[in-house]
Amino acid sequence: MTKTPVCVIGLGLIGGSVMRAAKAAGREVLGYNRSEPGAEAARSDGYEVTSNLDEALSRSADTGALIVLAVPMPALASILRRIRDIAPACPLTDVTSVKGAVLDVVTGAGLLERFVGGHPMAGTADSGWAAGDAHLFAGAPWVVCVDDHVDAGVWTQVMDLALDCRAVVVPARSDEHDAAAAAISHLPHLLAEALAATAAEIPLAFPLAAGSFRDGTRVAATAPELVRAMCEANATQLLPVLDQALHLLGDAREQLAHNRPVSALVEAGHTARIRYDSLSRPQIVSTVIGAGGWRDELAAAARAGGVIRSALPTLGSPG
Amino acid sequence: MTKTPVCVIGLGLIGGSVMRAAKAAGREVLGYNRSEPGAEAARSDGYEVTSNLDEALSRSADTGALIVLAVPMPALASILRRIRDIAPACPLTDVTSVKGAVLDVVTGAGLLERFVGGHPMAGTADSGWAAGDAHLFAGAPWVVCVDDHVDAGVWTQVMDLALDCRAVVVPARSDEHDAAAAAISHLPHLLAEALAATAAEIPLAFPLAAGSFRDGTRVAATAPELVRAMCEANATQLLPVLDQALHLLGDAREQLAHNRPVSALVEAGHTARIRYDSLSRPQIVSTVIGAGGWRDELAAAARAGGVIRSALPTLGSPG
Repeated sequence: MTKTPVCVIGLGLIGGSVMRAAKAAGREVLGYNRSEPGAEAARSDGYEVTSNLDEALSRSADTGALIVLAVPMPALASILRRIRDIAPACPLTDVTSVKGAVLDVVTGAGLLERFVGGHPMAGTADSGWAAGDAHLFAGAPWVVCVDDHVDAGVWTQVMDLALDCRAVVVPARSDEHDAAAAAISHLPHLLAEALAATAAEIPLAFPLAAGSFRDGTRVAATAPELVRAMCEANATQLLPVLDQALHLLGDAREQLAHNRPVSALVEAGHTARIRYDSLSRPQIVSTVIGAGGWRDELAAAARAGGVIRSALPTLGSPG
Repeated sequence: MTKTPVCVIGLGLIGGSVMRAAKAAGREVLGYNRSEPGAEAARSDGYEVTSNLDEALSRSADTGALIVLAVPMPALASILRRIRDIAPACPLTDVTSVKGAVLDVVTGAGLLERFVGGHPMAGTADSGWAAGDAHLFAGAPWVVCVDDHVDAGVWTQVMDLALDCRAVVVPARSDEHDAAAAAISHLPHLLAEALAATAAEIPLAFPLAAGSFRDGTRVAATAPELVRAMCEANATQLLPVLDQALHLLGDAREQLAHNRPVSALVEAGHTARIRYDSLSRPQIVSTVIGAGGWRDELAAAARAGGVIRSALPTLGSPG
């Protein structure tokens, strides 16, 4: 069976890595990059790339390619308008780190029906086509959204692409993904920034700093514009988890101020970390994509730690 | 020149490692351990150890040994009373992680004159004599306190012991040490606990957690009683840095709530972390211990990142 062709829109670190991984998996791959030097770099590495968006989209429409949006949020709306005009029937996914905001833009463009959001949770500190790597996603979680609207056929195509990139697929609703990302990525970034900035004011802190400080501030070395982009685009989900952390820390502060033990915070944190360390990752194998309740079933399995490591069957397709 | 003998009081991870390292450096070393099985374990490894405190102290008085207090805070006061009765003229140091609280207890016992506080900043997750290691301190910072009262001769003896243990000596006032420890160790522990506890409430957080969360919560795996002991004993210094972190995070929270950028926190954190990464560690070589202003000179050099890697000269001693 011939695999669905892929058209990657935007060939930065993630888009460029998807392109390489999809080609390595035997797919026909076309790429679009806004800047001609980036497109040229990809072409000289042997990839078929254009800097003409309409051309990329009209070829996608001809082949029924899966279009992968790998551009920053601000560029999405104008690209979606071109897709609606030129390739409205193509299956559509994205690789952006905040899913709710993307869903809104896609809905606004009238393209919801053929869209399934995605988020490969991999990356490096580098960017651009040259930083891409066909192995970037190997073993990494790739969230594929199971919101109420998603079409089983498109979902299968996005799952297949993620598996071709050797990721493990984690099915999730967009809002659940964003709440989790707030807690495990955006909140840690803010805490790291606050820790680094606080210690910077204490004269002897940096000379004495060791493991606890180094680990606790590692992500504060991330480029500020990336941290801002993540946190600000996910403010709705970040606020409640930030408030919860402030609440826990504020309680501990009151305990310390009154010479009382900080057991509540310390025990809760320790228990949580131990539970995290013992999380099991069972493989999801029994769900049939498109069968009654398949979206909820997948979301529930992922909440319990489940992941998809090899393609699930799709209702009505040859097994 | 014969090196000063050492008497280590308490043979847990740190005390047991000091004993091993001091013996390896050619010192005469005597140890005391409250529990007979611990003492016996050390004896069977070839060390001279008693579980009779008075005996250890009276032998220390005879030899003029440097007494190293390596017992938990709650045990200090009663041991100091025995020292005052039996070995009041012995030079005295400790290896406890909160310096101000120890200084208070030593002052209360009337032993301030011969006391110089210390804190080797090394450790592992294990404890007890068996966990000790002669190499535990190799390359680690060992804070040796330069409070106003400290005697140049005792200070030199403590510096020499730390260098014999292959640590790098960081001179600091007790209150400066405690403020720094609050910022680089105790605050990171509280933030890690809050992060782990907050994420634990979000259904999909643990299944999606990766590097940012793992690093940010690593120290939440520390035994809760150790975290409590550190934070509660240093509450006075921990409160202002916790308040500062809460202030920075609270400001960011307000920015997010009003769809405004979180630049202030993110830029400050990034700048701080980059400055930390570029900290230089010049060697302190020119100070003469006991010369006018030597304590302030050492404290200032350490604030600038300076460390002592080989023994400084002491006024009036053969160079």
